[in-house]
Amino acid sequence: MSLLVIGTVAFDAIETPFGKTDKIVGGAATYASLAASYFYNKVKIVAVVGDDFPISEIEDFNNHHISTEGLQIKAGQKSFFWSGRYHNDMNSRDTLITELNVLADFDPIIPESYQDCDYLMLGNLTPQVQQTVIKRLKHRPKLIVMDTMNFWMDIAMDDLLETIKMVDVLTINDAEARQLSGEYSLVKAARKILIMGPKYLIIKKGEHGALLFHQDMIFSAPALPLADVFDPTGAGDTFAGGFIGYMAKVGTVNFNNMKNAIIYGSALASFCVEKFGTESIKDLTEQAIKARVQQFVDLSHFNIVS
Amino acid sequence: MSLLVIGTVAFDAIETPFGKTDKIVGGAATYASLAASYFYNKVKIVAVVGDDFPISEIEDFNNHHISTEGLQIKAGQKSFFWSGRYHNDMNSRDTLITELNVLADFDPIIPESYQDCDYLMLGNLTPQVQQTVIKRLKHRPKLIVMDTMNFWMDIAMDDLLETIKMVDVLTINDAEARQLSGEYSLVKAARKILIMGPKYLIIKKGEHGALLFHQDMIFSAPALPLADVFDPTGAGDTFAGGFIGYMAKVGTVNFNNMKNAIIYGSALASFCVEKFGTESIKDLTEQAIKARVQQFVDLSHFNIVS
Repeated sequence: MSLLVIGTVAFDAIETPFGKTDKIVGGAATYASLAASYFYNKVKIVAVVGDDFPISEIEDFNNHHISTEGLQIKAGQKSFFWSGRYHNDMNSRDTLITELNVLADFDPIIPESYQDCDYLMLGNLTPQVQQTVIKRLKHRPKLIVMDTMNFWMDIAMDDLLETIKMVDVLTINDAEARQLSGEYSLVKAARKILIMGPKYLIIKKGEHGALLFHQDMIFSAPALPLADVFDPTGAGDTFAGGFIGYMAKVGTVNFNNMKNAIIYGSALASFCVEKFGTESIKDLTEQAIKARVQQFVDLSHFNIVS
Repeated sequence: MSLLVIGTVAFDAIETPFGKTDKIVGGAATYASLAASYFYNKVKIVAVVGDDFPISEIEDFNNHHISTEGLQIKAGQKSFFWSGRYHNDMNSRDTLITELNVLADFDPIIPESYQDCDYLMLGNLTPQVQQTVIKRLKHRPKLIVMDTMNFWMDIAMDDLLETIKMVDVLTINDAEARQLSGEYSLVKAARKILIMGPKYLIIKKGEHGALLFHQDMIFSAPALPLADVFDPTGAGDTFAGGFIGYMAKVGTVNFNNMKNAIIYGSALASFCVEKFGTESIKDLTEQAIKARVQQFVDLSHFNIVS
């Protein structure tokens, strides 16, 4: 039994209205595996970096009981690098630099010891690579969660549609749900997307929370209203990692468990945005997570006896 | 004991992507009093119309046990008329026509029989007129709820700030909360606005639900995800009317009751947008409201035992 996370492990340079960073460690698999590690102790990464990637950061994964056997280190090559600047509203950003480097010809090799995978998190990556991972697993995992973004809808829609067919849960934001379905109403968008393959759809709405769709059921999760969003980078990946980590912990795939998983994922994401990069999700305590989840309970609880 | 609703009673001509109407009855006091009437049977209107206003519509109020003694009918004058066209996203609209008519010199006369007012709903109107109503009441109501909009922030900010000081609950949307406070973060915006006077602040976020702020507490209410929003006109007024109607019904002003009141207000508003104008909130049954509220419960309920 393990939780496999595939995605980028990379460098980011981030500028927000609150400040800027030099190259810091980021990437979908970094955020997602760290978040998942708070719920499940058999998280395993499949990713690629160059030999510029610091050993100390790999040790950091291992300290979180995250296996890095599947983290390929390419000698003489550089890690993926992204640089971006957030606007004042923190909801939009400009990409300043994208250097694919090792990511350009990433071949996701699955170590034999990873074949016990029950939970698969496909972090945001080329749909083709995400699909390759599914195909290379000898047994279909119990739960496959796929994250993606508008970029792939723009340039690789066919691949994306093919990959979506193979997953259980798709996580995208509201604009992406509209783009993918051609429907403005999220209810109509969800209906169409659920026909494309996934049994569950999570629509992330940032500061407005998230919606979970399954058959005719809908769950609306609140976001924690925050005084300051310091850096939104990785919040979606952290959400997804917390979500699948919690699902792996409880071990039963159903709508009710997914509702809770969304709350836990949202709680982890609410930590993520409080500091630059992974800083605020590196050393979380069980107590801190519990207290944060309680804030979500208090925030959304009401008692109507009908 | 009564619930006094002040606001416009007017004609609207509405164009949405789904169709258009001729002049139909609208106005903040119309929507709010109808919504409130489902919870409380002593709703009383203070408003003004011209003699072009159909008697049948006044009878309709009375059929909902809404007193129209304070509805002034100006002979030889015309009712307020607004015409607007909604964009495809239904979140923005253009005003095509605004004819103030009787509203231009509206003097809100409070009939003696209205002086038993315990609950006061100040529908969207000139802040000066809203304030006059408060001053003309011999006893301060137990609960004063004030709705307003960006228009008054643009042209009458001083009056607005003075009126806000006198109320218990302010309801505005997220853009208006940002405009009023100068803060982008709604948490920071709420902190500033609560210092301006109101003890409670409701920030309406349309399809994203609503937030209630009081002291250091926050409640996040979901919106019902709808396949079709047919006509958003009056949804905010309906929300406010349902909110204060429910508060009048339960009779005790506190945070927990307000949370439920927001759910009931949201439920009423979710009916409102299903058809043009007041059509879908004219003949609601207790059962239909109960079922709709249950949808809000199902939508947002999760069970985390910490």
